[in-house]
Amino acid sequence: MTITAPKGFRAAGVTAGLKPSGKPDVALVVNDGPGDAAAAVFTTNRCKANPVLWSEQVMTDRRAKAVVLNSGGANCYTGPQGFQNTHASAEQVAEGLGIGPIDVVVCSTGLIGDQLDAEKLSTGIAGALADLSDGGGAAAAEAIMTTDTRSKQAVREGSGYRVAGMAKGAGMLAPALATMLVVLTTDADVDGSTADRALREATRVTFDRLDSDGCMSTNDTVLLMCSAASGVRPDEAEFFELVRQVCHDLAMQLLADAEGAEHEIAIEVVGAASESDAVEVGRAIARSNLFKCAVYGKDPNWGRILASVGTTSAAFEPDELDVAFNGVWVCRGGGPGEPRGKVDLTDRAVTVTVDLKAGTESATVWTNDLTHAYVHENSAYST
Amino acid sequence: MTITAPKGFRAAGVTAGLKPSGKPDVALVVNDGPGDAAAAVFTTNRCKANPVLWSEQVMTDRRAKAVVLNSGGANCYTGPQGFQNTHASAEQVAEGLGIGPIDVVVCSTGLIGDQLDAEKLSTGIAGALADLSDGGGAAAAEAIMTTDTRSKQAVREGSGYRVAGMAKGAGMLAPALATMLVVLTTDADVDGSTADRALREATRVTFDRLDSDGCMSTNDTVLLMCSAASGVRPDEAEFFELVRQVCHDLAMQLLADAEGAEHEIAIEVVGAASESDAVEVGRAIARSNLFKCAVYGKDPNWGRILASVGTTSAAFEPDELDVAFNGVWVCRGGGPGEPRGKVDLTDRAVTVTVDLKAGTESATVWTNDLTHAYVHENSAYST
Repeated sequence: MTITAPKGFRAAGVTAGLKPSGKPDVALVVNDGPGDAAAAVFTTNRCKANPVLWSEQVMTDRRAKAVVLNSGGANCYTGPQGFQNTHASAEQVAEGLGIGPIDVVVCSTGLIGDQLDAEKLSTGIAGALADLSDGGGAAAAEAIMTTDTRSKQAVREGSGYRVAGMAKGAGMLAPALATMLVVLTTDADVDGSTADRALREATRVTFDRLDSDGCMSTNDTVLLMCSAASGVRPDEAEFFELVRQVCHDLAMQLLADAEGAEHEIAIEVVGAASESDAVEVGRAIARSNLFKCAVYGKDPNWGRILASVGTTSAAFEPDELDVAFNGVWVCRGGGPGEPRGKVDLTDRAVTVTVDLKAGTESATVWTNDLTHAYVHENSAYST
Repeated sequence: MTITAPKGFRAAGVTAGLKPSGKPDVALVVNDGPGDAAAAVFTTNRCKANPVLWSEQVMTDRRAKAVVLNSGGANCYTGPQGFQNTHASAEQVAEGLGIGPIDVVVCSTGLIGDQLDAEKLSTGIAGALADLSDGGGAAAAEAIMTTDTRSKQAVREGSGYRVAGMAKGAGMLAPALATMLVVLTTDADVDGSTADRALREATRVTFDRLDSDGCMSTNDTVLLMCSAASGVRPDEAEFFELVRQVCHDLAMQLLADAEGAEHEIAIEVVGAASESDAVEVGRAIARSNLFKCAVYGKDPNWGRILASVGTTSAAFEPDELDVAFNGVWVCRGGGPGEPRGKVDLTDRAVTVTVDLKAGTESATVWTNDLTHAYVHENSAYST
């Protein structure tokens, strides 16, 4: 079950030859309506890739009828020629579907700084147009993978409608989204404004709190397309919750497939004076290479956590801080608590809990450990 | 030539048994005057180690007559018992020298969260008091090492006086100082206010711009003690410059000995609208694990640099950015420039230049690459 599970959508994933591996690399998702409301969230990086510059324009009216995505090249920092390639992709999709190019979102992922092969890309888009089907979601999810080891998909059932999604991303996951392309589909009948609010509320507590390696991508796009094909106007609370669930599900799949990681780490910050304090503390810990190395070494090194907490402006007193690894409170009152030896970090899933003792707010930030394999993948990636 | 090169100072370095390795671990530096002006800069981490909490009190009057330093334990997050150990050290040194404890700075370095062995520490301090000599500087510099592979010392000659220093630190070098203990000595006759200004101006452009791994320490202390034993009141410009030179020399020694690093990277940001813009951009690049992995892999990956620049609030236009590796402008106008193949990253020293095209200000930030050895040292450190 994938992005074609909601009614009104067709998809395809084909091989254009952009990837040296010869694996699928062009995906197309089409919303056949009757509705075309849409919402999107993009990277906040100021140095954006060409497809993001284009798609931001597409989304100004909160409508989209199709999204074309390619792996095998980010089309980022490729200048006017790169923008022209993005624009030509939208034109080609529009022509094939009989719609306007301004309703076609474009996403790219892969290496930065190289021009896409326009001819191969065009051949791929033609193939995807020909291959479109209401069973094509899984192929589309395959075609957007880069260093991902598996495709990421999620579906939730609402009262008479569905919300579905696919995602790619395995590194550079931070701090407001990731090198992450996500397409959500729904056959619920919602307007663009509702879709926008639902998507922003969902990304705020899911993708935005994923901080795999502290590096902000240039191509991040999360797109929600609404076909209204179910004819159901959803209860807003239910719809928002389902969008959040699909985003959370995909975010956890991204976390579990992060480059080289051996642990998925949930950093729960509790007792905070505000949610933003909790997020700031969680992010500071998630950015500590020393902490991340310690988890890789299965070492419940709470000192490195306190050292990170101390870099923030959150409300707390240093001698009141408590820290637990997997429920064992190894730090109490800013000093040693239960013995470190009681902590077992052999499982991939690790939960770190930090109690700031300053209020009742909380937040969770997710990250990965820093491993030999991460260094290897990211030092050898382009060579 | 070391910290006992300026007149009026004695030092010692002895083995107290705090380090399992049996290497020297207690150092003492004494200012015999006639002057006792001093200045210090401490970590800005809010979760500070006990010796920092004590030494901040000592330095409120800008006077110090001695500093006692131990490796083999940071005495950090060790609660009231830890503070008591710090205080007892100052008392013991004061009694041995016939001075007040409030003139004794205390520094500790090593693992966080463990209590120091008070008995061993006391035996070590007694030994250091007995060993004090005007040739003891090198032994003191040895005794403060942790994962350092060599001791760090520097001396500069002024007009009738000297400025000298010793340092330790090999990781956690950021962002305002490092896990870094630095003691500077001078026999120039300066008052506490002048010493303070000289030290702050020097650390601002040296230790503060060293960002080895983005992690802020809990114990950082940079202390400058002034004996006035030369009888020379220095020209202020010359004195400030010599203090800066000693700090720069020690900072480069710290950079070259960073845990697991294979490259020393100078990030020069030019064409900035302001110095703070240049520093912000330099720091953002220095914090990018993806960039640091690329340098380790000898890959002049300018795309990862632009992606970091894009996370800052500095003044620039994305399509005007130029980036060079070792003088080869691989990125021009936010897109590909000269071929990457022209860049040779086999030498340890790497210079990255980023031209923001937004003004005439500049700054240099120094960092290291992210290597397998870094991950190894920091995942295995405490186990």
